[in-house]
Amino acid sequence: MTDSQQILLASRPSGEPTQQDFRFESTALPEPQEGEVLLGVKYLSLDPYMRGRMSAAKSYAAPVEVGDVMEGGTVAEVLSSKSDSLSEGDLVLSYSGWQSHAVEKASAVRKLDDNGLSPSTALGVLGMPGFTAYAGLLELGKPKPGETVVVAAASGPVGSAVGQIARLKGARAVGIAGGPEKCRYVKEELGFDEVVDHRDPDFEANLAAATPDGIDVYFENVGGHVWDAVFPRLNTFARVPVCGRIAHYNDTSAPEGPDKLPRFFSDVLSKSLTIRGFIQTEFVPTMFADFRRDMSAWVRSGEVKYREDVVKGLDNAPDAFIGMLKGKNFGKLVIEV
Amino acid sequence: MTDSQQILLASRPSGEPTQQDFRFESTALPEPQEGEVLLGVKYLSLDPYMRGRMSAAKSYAAPVEVGDVMEGGTVAEVLSSKSDSLSEGDLVLSYSGWQSHAVEKASAVRKLDDNGLSPSTALGVLGMPGFTAYAGLLELGKPKPGETVVVAAASGPVGSAVGQIARLKGARAVGIAGGPEKCRYVKEELGFDEVVDHRDPDFEANLAAATPDGIDVYFENVGGHVWDAVFPRLNTFARVPVCGRIAHYNDTSAPEGPDKLPRFFSDVLSKSLTIRGFIQTEFVPTMFADFRRDMSAWVRSGEVKYREDVVKGLDNAPDAFIGMLKGKNFGKLVIEV
Repeated sequence: MTDSQQILLASRPSGEPTQQDFRFESTALPEPQEGEVLLGVKYLSLDPYMRGRMSAAKSYAAPVEVGDVMEGGTVAEVLSSKSDSLSEGDLVLSYSGWQSHAVEKASAVRKLDDNGLSPSTALGVLGMPGFTAYAGLLELGKPKPGETVVVAAASGPVGSAVGQIARLKGARAVGIAGGPEKCRYVKEELGFDEVVDHRDPDFEANLAAATPDGIDVYFENVGGHVWDAVFPRLNTFARVPVCGRIAHYNDTSAPEGPDKLPRFFSDVLSKSLTIRGFIQTEFVPTMFADFRRDMSAWVRSGEVKYREDVVKGLDNAPDAFIGMLKGKNFGKLVIEV
Repeated sequence: MTDSQQILLASRPSGEPTQQDFRFESTALPEPQEGEVLLGVKYLSLDPYMRGRMSAAKSYAAPVEVGDVMEGGTVAEVLSSKSDSLSEGDLVLSYSGWQSHAVEKASAVRKLDDNGLSPSTALGVLGMPGFTAYAGLLELGKPKPGETVVVAAASGPVGSAVGQIARLKGARAVGIAGGPEKCRYVKEELGFDEVVDHRDPDFEANLAAATPDGIDVYFENVGGHVWDAVFPRLNTFARVPVCGRIAHYNDTSAPEGPDKLPRFFSDVLSKSLTIRGFIQTEFVPTMFADFRRDMSAWVRSGEVKYREDVVKGLDNAPDAFIGMLKGKNFGKLVIEV
């Protein structure tokens, strides 16, 4: 019998989640049955979408029920196997959630190859966030050489990949990030053409200066005041893949007026804009193999750089998650369990 | 020397246009020069987009200047020709605006074939509105057999074509129109599967009943309370081509709150919606020839029906136009000059 240290959803947050919305528990796991494996979780991915799972509101995926283990992608080691396809010591990508151990069907996990990189990259640049950037930018954003691509949270796992892939495709990449340290990283380490600090009081003017030819692709992952500054700069036929709106995830009601929707539609019409929401799973069947091939090569050659923000200890997951929603992480946030 | 009776833009309307925003004038035209023709305008098209041209606000096309002739598509007869390509008596499609006569370059007009239909159809079902429906629905809406297509202003020139083409492609067409007479026409004459009256106090519930499987394509041309009822019924992966927002053309400021934009984006994301503004000119190079072939055949076979609301006398154009913005026309509004 193995005990799993688990973090459960204790209550649905109203607005910003707090420690009280999580509960720690130790649960004895059943023995793995035929075709199953016992996993020891090594890394847990923390991602903005999880805020949505904490709410009861209808969305593209069912919410986590109160009293259930918080969901999440994980990299885990096989501790014992009752499956022919996996052996003790194998590392796998699983969706085991916020806990230290799990029993999973072997068919529900994917064995990781040893590619010389930290296995945690399977949760970041080579995993869901990297694929979100790759599929959203190439399939929906469709940047042409010379066009201007803007992305916010540019030091984060999605934004950093968006800008670097845009440059590999010949576009001009302008990043938006919060604070001088992240901005320096985006421009100097990641090689974006320009970076703009959204915390700067002159943010709007600085964005205008950084996008003298307007914006052809805005990869939307934040919303809020960043969206307000970006929107008027969109060019005719601009494309806006929407993969997230983290600035609004803690909203408890619609903001005060005026109602910006009619003005939004007026520009959608007069500029022939394309606004397209997406969840990366839509493109897994058609693009994931290409992504693994391209992204692995780019990471190995150094053409795509990535940064991880590794927090040690499962107990720290709630705090790290709450901080991420405020932009406190610097790079892909993973918990070393 | 020929005098042209003209209607000029006298002032930029604030909100609803009034008679005072237009001015009547008689202007002596120059003699046609080599390569030019003198035209007698027979039909003037009145369309919602003209409200945008009356405003100074930046849009996809330059505004009409105060003191200039109001712009508009026209069908005209060649009264005299100094061009080899056109002869007296020819009927042409031109963009001569709100006036009785015009001198145009022969290269700037298109000679109309005698297709056995009223030449005014070149301004409606076989012209810009019909093409807006055809290109927007087929290229952006992409209805699949069995899907539900919803369109408002369903008795109008764009909406009526959208629904009928949707049915020809195997989709289910649900129209929205104002008042029992238009609704009866949409369902019984045009053959839409369902029609819903947006003036009915039970509009929202009726729309829900008419779209039991949700909405896969919403062809947006009105906005306002129709949009509010349609939006929650959009299915995952729904497509929304946006060709107009007539309910908002007379807006003088952003409506009061709450701000609906964050909720809009939340659904765009969770349902992977596509919102795409367009102006039909975008698709002229790639689709207009197909449109003329298909639509002419459909009209001749009776598969696509159309209705014109012909108002006699250029002097009545301002009133007819003001009424159109309130939905008073019934079918494609044309002025018989």
